[in-house]
Amino acid sequence: MLMFYKQPSCKFNRVETVLCVESDFVDQSNCSFVSHDFFSCTTFRCCVSERPNALFPSAPALNDKERSATEVLIQHRRGSRQRYLQDAFKVPLVIQLTDDEKCMWKNLSVEESRRLARENAKDIIACGFDISRTFIFSDFDYVGGAFYQNMVRVAKCVTFNKVVGIFGFTHEDHIGKISFPPVQAVPSFPSSFPHLFAGYDNLRCLIPCAIDQDPYFRMTRDVAPRIGYQKPALIESSFFPALQGETGKMSASDPNSAIYVTDTPKVIKNKVNRYAFSGGQDSIENHRKYGANLEVDIPVKYLSFFLEDDEELEHIKKEYGAGRLLTGEVKKRLIEVLSAIVERHQKARASVTDEMVDAFMAVRPLPHMFS
Amino acid sequence: MLMFYKQPSCKFNRVETVLCVESDFVDQSNCSFVSHDFFSCTTFRCCVSERPNALFPSAPALNDKERSATEVLIQHRRGSRQRYLQDAFKVPLVIQLTDDEKCMWKNLSVEESRRLARENAKDIIACGFDISRTFIFSDFDYVGGAFYQNMVRVAKCVTFNKVVGIFGFTHEDHIGKISFPPVQAVPSFPSSFPHLFAGYDNLRCLIPCAIDQDPYFRMTRDVAPRIGYQKPALIESSFFPALQGETGKMSASDPNSAIYVTDTPKVIKNKVNRYAFSGGQDSIENHRKYGANLEVDIPVKYLSFFLEDDEELEHIKKEYGAGRLLTGEVKKRLIEVLSAIVERHQKARASVTDEMVDAFMAVRPLPHMFS
Repeated sequence: MLMFYKQPSCKFNRVETVLCVESDFVDQSNCSFVSHDFFSCTTFRCCVSERPNALFPSAPALNDKERSATEVLIQHRRGSRQRYLQDAFKVPLVIQLTDDEKCMWKNLSVEESRRLARENAKDIIACGFDISRTFIFSDFDYVGGAFYQNMVRVAKCVTFNKVVGIFGFTHEDHIGKISFPPVQAVPSFPSSFPHLFAGYDNLRCLIPCAIDQDPYFRMTRDVAPRIGYQKPALIESSFFPALQGETGKMSASDPNSAIYVTDTPKVIKNKVNRYAFSGGQDSIENHRKYGANLEVDIPVKYLSFFLEDDEELEHIKKEYGAGRLLTGEVKKRLIEVLSAIVERHQKARASVTDEMVDAFMAVRPLPHMFS
Repeated sequence: MLMFYKQPSCKFNRVETVLCVESDFVDQSNCSFVSHDFFSCTTFRCCVSERPNALFPSAPALNDKERSATEVLIQHRRGSRQRYLQDAFKVPLVIQLTDDEKCMWKNLSVEESRRLARENAKDIIACGFDISRTFIFSDFDYVGGAFYQNMVRVAKCVTFNKVVGIFGFTHEDHIGKISFPPVQAVPSFPSSFPHLFAGYDNLRCLIPCAIDQDPYFRMTRDVAPRIGYQKPALIESSFFPALQGETGKMSASDPNSAIYVTDTPKVIKNKVNRYAFSGGQDSIENHRKYGANLEVDIPVKYLSFFLEDDEELEHIKKEYGAGRLLTGEVKKRLIEVLSAIVERHQKARASVTDEMVDAFMAVRPLPHMFS
């Protein structure tokens, strides 16, 4: 998590394990620690994209319209942050691919959802996770046994009234949707993974996720003590803005609202130059006079995520805000940064084989997960 | 099915497979073939009892109050009927133990529900099923993979409105209950058992069950063609009456409303003599004059189920109805019949080992299931 190395004073010394991966990014400018529990292990979760090679944050029931293809690109960044977390704390990481959710919410076939889950796994693996501490699973493959038993334990504690209140389900929603919250909840509990955590029933779990996933894990935190389990802890992030600006919606149906990890440098250049909403003034004269409005400027927002060098970022903000840098110049820098990240990701992803996916997804112990 | 050897003219030549076992008995006097589909294979299903050694028909959501411990005894009879079906048609048989359902409806722990499922399996095995054609599974053990994928396919087709209409769920019901119908539905589909029926996707399934299970399988029949599957066919039976009579409710909380397969001959004698509702008259004189009312007489109803010899049954009915036989004499015959059946079952059950349960429940191919 970028947040982690920007705020190294955070008390992570109690982190014991990273349980599951939520592929949603963690925005360092907008994270909140839900709970006095703080965390001693982490859950991430990853959702299947309809587009091969593109990673969407999992934003199922409630926030479909807010879900954004752009966030896909963030995946590379996210991936590296999660990898940092794993590297820094030597914790096991479990990545849930909710192909069942995608099948139910997007009305995809089971087969297509499973195929996309594997494609998604390749993007995740390309981020460089340590296979000796990482277990990736898809719901369609893994649900069953101890995991299913926990689903039933959770489901018994949650009434329909409750999920209506939490998720806004209606009478017209199919029961697949109503059945789903426990599927998302139970990776928070180590006993759902007996091949990993047998004998570690009291491990705690940390869930970095986008704000839209909060309802699932609030429900989980509510239920956990009632079934004798530890509550998961959460780090929540806001949504990454669409290229068109904070008010625009990233939409899978509008490829220009987002940058994909599959985009070519030319496409990235075109998208940023044509669609990235600028906070610059309408004329060079006015721009020199008034400076750019950084609050709404998408190139600066994107650079805040993607530019590694904090000093350069501060410099750009200062110069751009004062009108000494022009929008074109900032966009040029963003294009360079994005292109480099995307190229690196594409190279890494091209080297991910089906055998590697099988290896990460094999139900197996992780012998050195705590070392 | 007793019905089958009493009506040998039924067109069973199209029966191809018995898929799942519903442990509910089939009452030959009250069976209906749902559908023009008739059947070409059979689903039975079996439910877990709270009482070890006692088998309840699965009557979950709607009919808890009607569920009856007495029916347990019928199990022996049922078992032999199902065995007959299997023997006669050389069909594979899959028996679902819905331990998850019991866990959710009876608020038992997962562990206790699983334990009871194994106890239940022993009673079923004691009926003499052919292990080379019988697969017994419990939901907690088996849900997952292809089975779970089918659950999602079914769930997508059923709205909350629909399950409210079918099962009478309310907003206060927990989502475990709302999630359950697909679990009961999908054993109707051969693709839920790839280790058995890979390549046999078009096999048809027959479900003999008690009338209370009808909602589940009407839902299943509604959904099946929408997901490209064959509809299951059903044979439905009425409830077996409580000892106290048709108007009485069999209740697990009243052991005297039912006869258990664990009852001793002495207990059986006592229960029949004290509690079995008689259609006989209030004095011997009146009885000789008016005869017994066979419509309400429980000993005669029970004998209709348990007495193998049709001629003797007719004789008893005739003599008893005419007042020439007394209630005590009919009860005496019932006690003999029940005691013999229960004793036979107890002996058979005592010989069922944990290893046999493991063998029946092993996920394995059944190489000779169609021969």
